[in-house]
Amino acid sequence: MSGPVPVVRTLQPLREMVARWHREGSAVGLVPTMGALHRGHLELVREARKRAARVVVSIFVNPTQFAPNEDFDRYPRDEAGDLAKLASVGCDAVWSPERSVMYPDGFATRIVPAGAAEGLESDFRPHFFGGVATVCCKLFTQVGPDVAVFGEKDFQQLAVVKQMVRDLNLPLEIVGAETVREADGLAMSSRNAYLSPGERAIAPAMHRVITEVADKVRGGADIAATERAASAALTEAGFGKIDYVAVRDAISLQVPAPTSRASLRVLAAAWLGKTRLIDNVPV
Amino acid sequence: MSGPVPVVRTLQPLREMVARWHREGSAVGLVPTMGALHRGHLELVREARKRAARVVVSIFVNPTQFAPNEDFDRYPRDEAGDLAKLASVGCDAVWSPERSVMYPDGFATRIVPAGAAEGLESDFRPHFFGGVATVCCKLFTQVGPDVAVFGEKDFQQLAVVKQMVRDLNLPLEIVGAETVREADGLAMSSRNAYLSPGERAIAPAMHRVITEVADKVRGGADIAATERAASAALTEAGFGKIDYVAVRDAISLQVPAPTSRASLRVLAAAWLGKTRLIDNVPV
Repeated sequence: MSGPVPVVRTLQPLREMVARWHREGSAVGLVPTMGALHRGHLELVREARKRAARVVVSIFVNPTQFAPNEDFDRYPRDEAGDLAKLASVGCDAVWSPERSVMYPDGFATRIVPAGAAEGLESDFRPHFFGGVATVCCKLFTQVGPDVAVFGEKDFQQLAVVKQMVRDLNLPLEIVGAETVREADGLAMSSRNAYLSPGERAIAPAMHRVITEVADKVRGGADIAATERAASAALTEAGFGKIDYVAVRDAISLQVPAPTSRASLRVLAAAWLGKTRLIDNVPV
Repeated sequence: MSGPVPVVRTLQPLREMVARWHREGSAVGLVPTMGALHRGHLELVREARKRAARVVVSIFVNPTQFAPNEDFDRYPRDEAGDLAKLASVGCDAVWSPERSVMYPDGFATRIVPAGAAEGLESDFRPHFFGGVATVCCKLFTQVGPDVAVFGEKDFQQLAVVKQMVRDLNLPLEIVGAETVREADGLAMSSRNAYLSPGERAIAPAMHRVITEVADKVRGGADIAATERAASAALTEAGFGKIDYVAVRDAISLQVPAPTSRASLRVLAAAWLGKTRLIDNVPV
């Protein structure tokens, strides 16, 4: 059994700690999170532990990736609960900076990703990937890890972060870890806590529908027609607004050419009441 | 006497070289340049040598900081001459990547600085600081230096780079080095090579005029009136279009509050024929 996980809140002790680990010859892994940890996050920590002797989990609810009308204020926060969960899986430190440490007065530099960031989430959350790319770059330069692990649940985010790391020559490896699901297929998400019992009963339809899309496309079905049918199936199942159901190139996230043999991914985003759910599966 | 300076053109040997120096306990300095080196650049190398046992000079004419109508194609290039000059001052390696190494196919991430990047140069070269910030971030993450030295000649650029390093928590120190001038006061610049003999005779008026502005402002003169008179004096001296003569806060580059006691800087940009000159002095 391990003791309580140390929480670091300012940059200098963080850097001294990681420099000490590197001097000792340990690789360092980072798992960036916004807290409200669930089993999916704990799998990311286990994945990081396979690749690095020391693992840092960052907990920072990043205001710049929320639009003013989004759920920044009500996003679930539970540091004590998060620390207890992390102690159970073996995490060497939590990096939990205050907002004023992450974005001091006068902060004025943004990272703007294109490429994999275009379309899908960006059509509905135009501010999102700029906020994600900027805070991830900062988390990487603050912690200085050798590897960072992200969930495939946010598949386009994973692609954007990989592209940023490649484009900006950041000296670390980005690893994607498979989505962890409830027994009925619902992808684990901190936002599932928003769902009413009725919405919770509808939610697994998203995974069922996109899995059917993957099967059909693998079987040679027309992509556009399959996307349209899937959107109708989500509405039929009880979802509200359907932001997208889309089959995309798994690396570039762009619309695949009709003759493309590249690996594909099915991605979806739709609303249940005031809660927006996203999910994806490989073709 | 030192031997020829090794030129590194791909990322892996660059990183191995710098990692070896760091393992040996040497601090590493970087001097980012676009080549066409003059005595001003060599002073930056000397400044870097004071702070680091190993010095890398990067030579890369960065296309993304030139607008289509600007002088990217005719910008002076002379690698052999540059290497000879660098050998004379003691430089451990030149980092000179091809464009395809710096910006491979699919490159899609930009850094967009605000704050110190607003106004002045941005009013006339709106693409400029985005290109500078992105390539400097990449040079820093590619080389991994402990310190990078920039000339005060490009004063707003120095402020933007400092701000980016602070905002993105890049783990290096940015040092500004004093502008090196010809005997008649003209700031050394690779672009001085564009000047005709007639234009070259007019050019030193810029330093003379902004030095007078600094003297007057120090003596309590009205800032706006002094800026206007200086602009007229440059026209009188033979300059063409005057982009700006401006007194600004030396850190934020913003218009100083009337009661500000902050340190100030006089900055100017103006045209001589097809050549755009910039210069600045402290108040």
